[in-house]
Amino acid sequence: MLTINQSCSMIIFGGTGDLTHRKLIPALYHLMYQGMLPEGFTVISVGRQQKSNTDYREELYQSVLKYSRFQVQKVLWDRLSERIYYRAFSFDEEDGYEKLKADLLQIDQMYNTAGNRLYYLAVSPENFAPIVEKIKEHNLIPENEGWQRVVIEKPFGQDLPSAQRLNKRIGKVFSEKDTYRIDHYLGKEMIQNIMVIRFANTIFEPLWNYQYIDHIQITAAETEGVGSRGGYYEKAGALRDMVQNHLLQLLAIAAMEPPEKNDAESIRDEKVRILRAIHFPKASAIGRHVALGQYSGYRQEEKVSPQSTTETYVALKLFLDCDRWRGVPFYIRTGKKLEQKTSQIVVQFKQPPKPFYKECEEGCNPNLLVIKIQPEEGTVLQFNAKKPGNLQQILPVGMNFCQNCNLENNSPEAYEKLLLDVMSGDASRFTRWDEVEYSWRFIDEISNCCSNKAELIENYSAGSWGPQQGQQLIERSGRKWWNL
Amino acid sequence: MLTINQSCSMIIFGGTGDLTHRKLIPALYHLMYQGMLPEGFTVISVGRQQKSNTDYREELYQSVLKYSRFQVQKVLWDRLSERIYYRAFSFDEEDGYEKLKADLLQIDQMYNTAGNRLYYLAVSPENFAPIVEKIKEHNLIPENEGWQRVVIEKPFGQDLPSAQRLNKRIGKVFSEKDTYRIDHYLGKEMIQNIMVIRFANTIFEPLWNYQYIDHIQITAAETEGVGSRGGYYEKAGALRDMVQNHLLQLLAIAAMEPPEKNDAESIRDEKVRILRAIHFPKASAIGRHVALGQYSGYRQEEKVSPQSTTETYVALKLFLDCDRWRGVPFYIRTGKKLEQKTSQIVVQFKQPPKPFYKECEEGCNPNLLVIKIQPEEGTVLQFNAKKPGNLQQILPVGMNFCQNCNLENNSPEAYEKLLLDVMSGDASRFTRWDEVEYSWRFIDEISNCCSNKAELIENYSAGSWGPQQGQQLIERSGRKWWNL
Repeated sequence: MLTINQSCSMIIFGGTGDLTHRKLIPALYHLMYQGMLPEGFTVISVGRQQKSNTDYREELYQSVLKYSRFQVQKVLWDRLSERIYYRAFSFDEEDGYEKLKADLLQIDQMYNTAGNRLYYLAVSPENFAPIVEKIKEHNLIPENEGWQRVVIEKPFGQDLPSAQRLNKRIGKVFSEKDTYRIDHYLGKEMIQNIMVIRFANTIFEPLWNYQYIDHIQITAAETEGVGSRGGYYEKAGALRDMVQNHLLQLLAIAAMEPPEKNDAESIRDEKVRILRAIHFPKASAIGRHVALGQYSGYRQEEKVSPQSTTETYVALKLFLDCDRWRGVPFYIRTGKKLEQKTSQIVVQFKQPPKPFYKECEEGCNPNLLVIKIQPEEGTVLQFNAKKPGNLQQILPVGMNFCQNCNLENNSPEAYEKLLLDVMSGDASRFTRWDEVEYSWRFIDEISNCCSNKAELIENYSAGSWGPQQGQQLIERSGRKWWNL
Repeated sequence: MLTINQSCSMIIFGGTGDLTHRKLIPALYHLMYQGMLPEGFTVISVGRQQKSNTDYREELYQSVLKYSRFQVQKVLWDRLSERIYYRAFSFDEEDGYEKLKADLLQIDQMYNTAGNRLYYLAVSPENFAPIVEKIKEHNLIPENEGWQRVVIEKPFGQDLPSAQRLNKRIGKVFSEKDTYRIDHYLGKEMIQNIMVIRFANTIFEPLWNYQYIDHIQITAAETEGVGSRGGYYEKAGALRDMVQNHLLQLLAIAAMEPPEKNDAESIRDEKVRILRAIHFPKASAIGRHVALGQYSGYRQEEKVSPQSTTETYVALKLFLDCDRWRGVPFYIRTGKKLEQKTSQIVVQFKQPPKPFYKECEEGCNPNLLVIKIQPEEGTVLQFNAKKPGNLQQILPVGMNFCQNCNLENNSPEAYEKLLLDVMSGDASRFTRWDEVEYSWRFIDEISNCCSNKAELIENYSAGSWGPQQGQQLIERSGRKWWNL
């Protein structure tokens, strides 16, 4: 079993918000259920609304019933919920922080949490820095006692300058090593699996380079539209909302060199090398390397401008300036209101050396390794086999490994793993400042090139696979998007 | 569809035997069912017993009902069976051959078979040469008209000298290119698939050598005992009955270089190179490279000597003297009365380059590619993945491809494919003389080394995985037999 022997308090700012109800509290219940929460673990939830502990706990209970992946045992829930306290104050209310301090000192005594504190900022981004600063002002970080870590939700800035400003303000309170920039994608089972698949298998490790790989394509497709998030989304768009964090992280993990050690710094060092190596085409060629789309009806969504030029779809063709990937294109796409909800990485291998079989004279069906991230979790290996029967024909067949098909293997939610990571001080699955920095640098470069968005953006029908130019981006080189 | 546009007559010597009833006639029915028999195809079955065409056809019908993989449609069967004629004569009866000649000439006219003849010797080996010689004496091979081919069942000789003698006698009647030495293993779906898997897939082709493969093991295990075949088996034993043909053929296909072309001569050229390269340990080391066993109770079987030293189990450790396989051991085992009926090839890959994960410090679970030949047909790829859950653990998981799980893909019987091959003149899946020659050379070498069989042979219990020394043969080098 995991050994988290240090008790701690978790202070959630945004305790009545969606994330707390849908993800954080269910994740804590799951950890409880699996006996993985440290002894003496305590939660203080902070929100603006006035309500009693009893009412708050009841509301959370309803959410856990709704979102838990396990059957909810009331007796177990009670053991967790009696350690969850609600405190009502506004994030700029000095008095609230003072009361919080008193609470925390009391908890330290009651539950032996020894000054260990996990500040979780489940709030809008404009509140990140102010809350962190209040935490310092009110001495909520005991000196020389236990550990204090802050978890910051996305987005970390809207571009490089704003991210740098935010980072500077946070850095005055929490050191880089205590700053956990969360990207819930990195907690997903199959993303954690990519490194294992790549580095613990002789059948994949030697093939993972320009000699054997034709290209890699990464898709994060949603069927949903922007919903009630129009206000935020108008400023972000698919590029900032999905590419800057999730997709570039996937790219980095799929492409990086083997880290020296299996620890946070080695892994993030290698990811940074990839993010730094992303080779962006010259402005003149941008139309061939970036495709932007907006789904029909987006401009009619709530809190969206009727003249909006925000992209709800983006596809990119990238290269990496490093020996391993010389000449290998990486294709990335993400979008809303697409045909299918799926996140996956497809590795397409090159052709075998000689057209030994008639069917292969013009090229065999390519070998594919598909790493399915969600909603299905698993791998598919497409290879060529003889068609059963008396004729000599070759056809592509698939070998499947399904990680979440078996109910007993019910995969944990990303937040479970990530919360455990913060408690045990493992930052491997959190983005380091330099990763954020290079990601923004790249995204800003695209934004600058695409300042004439109104001209570039193409409409696409809801339920399609996105705009024509997204297809052309990959088809121009004789490849295609695999929707497997 | 396959285009066999040449009609032909098939003359089966041994028309009342087991092989004809269980395999040949059902295979012909299956081909009929699939519309693959050439127009005007006709069968003359020769046997010693007197019986009418009607009775013979009825007997065959019962067998087809019993052994067909498709539902038997009476109307279709009738269309086939009215072309099946029975002729009773003894193989040394001159008059019988004369009548056969008259029949064949008549068939040539009636069905436009144009002198095309497929002589199938489903008889005991001592009759191979005499029948072939009678065929010549009685001019059953029309000169300058159509094609005439002979199919010879195993065993082709009992050792190299007897095989050479047999081959000489057959060679005086049929040229090498018209001599089809049948090994039904080579008609099995997954054996035909090995070349496709190896040469039409970038994920396997570059790994298929000493750099990435630790060893290859080939198993052909039966649960049955010797049954009523004691008389034959006493003289053969597992080495001659299984290794000389089936297992060495599997070895050759698994290990050979890519043939220059996908044709019979290129493929068999490469197989011969492997059979010639088999590197047999010096006599002094034989105990470490050969393991012989006999199941308890074998000496009490029908027609078996109470002092028998015939091996019912053999395991070998071989090396190939060629660049691709320098230093890579090949393990072979076959036996009767073993725990499980299975024929399969397991390719065990070497360790990945560095012990990146804690679990891999002493070696990761190896990657395995299992090619399942029978009774299951398919592939399994065992690789390492992250164990689902919140702990970082690695475990081996399997991706499966099942070729015969889907009822619609009901695999054809080996004999269907092989009979079609003979009719269309494709000898790729038949053993050429030099293959037989090098196989016997190797088997004889073992036999000579093991002349003190009585001392070498070890008893094993029925239902076990064979004798201790069979386990030790592989375990001595830190490996193991995979029973997957």
